[in-house]
Amino acid sequence: MRMRKLPWAEDFLNEQEVVVKEPAQYKGTWKEMLDCTCLHVEIGTGKGDYWTKMSQCYPDFGWIGVEKNSSVAALAVRKFVNMEGKKEHMRFIQDDAEEIAQWFAHGEVDVIHLNFSDPWPKKRAHKKRLSNHKFIAQYADILSDDGEIQMKTDNSSLFEYSIMEFQNEGWYLHDFSVDYRRVEHDEDVITEYENRFMERNQPIYRAVWKKHPVVKKEN
Amino acid sequence: MRMRKLPWAEDFLNEQEVVVKEPAQYKGTWKEMLDCTCLHVEIGTGKGDYWTKMSQCYPDFGWIGVEKNSSVAALAVRKFVNMEGKKEHMRFIQDDAEEIAQWFAHGEVDVIHLNFSDPWPKKRAHKKRLSNHKFIAQYADILSDDGEIQMKTDNSSLFEYSIMEFQNEGWYLHDFSVDYRRVEHDEDVITEYENRFMERNQPIYRAVWKKHPVVKKEN
Repeated sequence: MRMRKLPWAEDFLNEQEVVVKEPAQYKGTWKEMLDCTCLHVEIGTGKGDYWTKMSQCYPDFGWIGVEKNSSVAALAVRKFVNMEGKKEHMRFIQDDAEEIAQWFAHGEVDVIHLNFSDPWPKKRAHKKRLSNHKFIAQYADILSDDGEIQMKTDNSSLFEYSIMEFQNEGWYLHDFSVDYRRVEHDEDVITEYENRFMERNQPIYRAVWKKHPVVKKEN
Repeated sequence: MRMRKLPWAEDFLNEQEVVVKEPAQYKGTWKEMLDCTCLHVEIGTGKGDYWTKMSQCYPDFGWIGVEKNSSVAALAVRKFVNMEGKKEHMRFIQDDAEEIAQWFAHGEVDVIHLNFSDPWPKKRAHKKRLSNHKFIAQYADILSDDGEIQMKTDNSSLFEYSIMEFQNEGWYLHDFSVDYRRVEHDEDVITEYENRFMERNQPIYRAVWKKHPVVKKEN
């Protein structure tokens, strides 16, 4: 999602309390701060449609949005400012996630969301993809033992790459769809961005990974 | 692929030398019989387009086609009879593959092809899918140590199921595409059946599994 630089973005972000300026300071204390037992982090919020909607559907969870582009981040935070409803369980980080393991303690995060991430199509830029093995190593660190990573994308190349990267890092594919919206998933809100692909009948790819297979408990 | 029963099918199949009547008799001797070091088996040939075309592209390999429906099998074998070119490296088995491990010795097969297999859409029929774990256990037995299974399908549900089944049986996903014909694959012939989906711009899903990750040799 490329957009022109908004001149008001940086000042606006500096003024908002929801925006956490030095996230590493809060390492290990996020759940206490947000009064939750389950912490969700969306990396790459874009304009914040998913972050704001999901936080209202699931107000008992903590919801942290991360977006590196300051102009896009400003639109997400403006959406937050203008919305009704519970807000104290939400925070926003405007920064690059490439050192995300500095922000969260080992096992502190329960769910990581990667929605329509930048596909970085050129081969030499693949290392910037949020499913590159260097990112995955950090996710492994900050995710709880039964935590998970949920990815949705319209980009076939990014999806194929991600499936291989997570496999090669030893993760377990817990759920997998090559046409996620073929059936309704009311539990997972549809963003404006996602809706564009659905209107064009383009498939949404989705995968959920966990560190280990889920062992079913005997009755 | 459903079709009406052809009254001439069974007699015709009985007359053709390429059709192996009791495949279990040849267990362990296929490569010698077909004078090859690499044995390919296609399970579910349909009308035989892939089996006949690939055997001509790769005449040094052995090519065994398997199809349980006798009328469909008869059309495949008729295609074989009418075609020009080398034939002595080909055989056909008209039978159900559910006991395929009776036909081949441990490690005797190098590549198994599953092309546009019956999706068996109803949940209670999933056990009949050629990627059900009971089939996979037999493939593990008959495949050589660095052998592989190649699957192509237009059916998203079958593909999703297959990815999960092979993972859960501990296989390694060696190659994976949610839109295989997005780029040209000249090494892999396009059948009439596959071409129908391509003309409608429907994606072809493809996966290749091996028993273990391929270890790259150091130079």
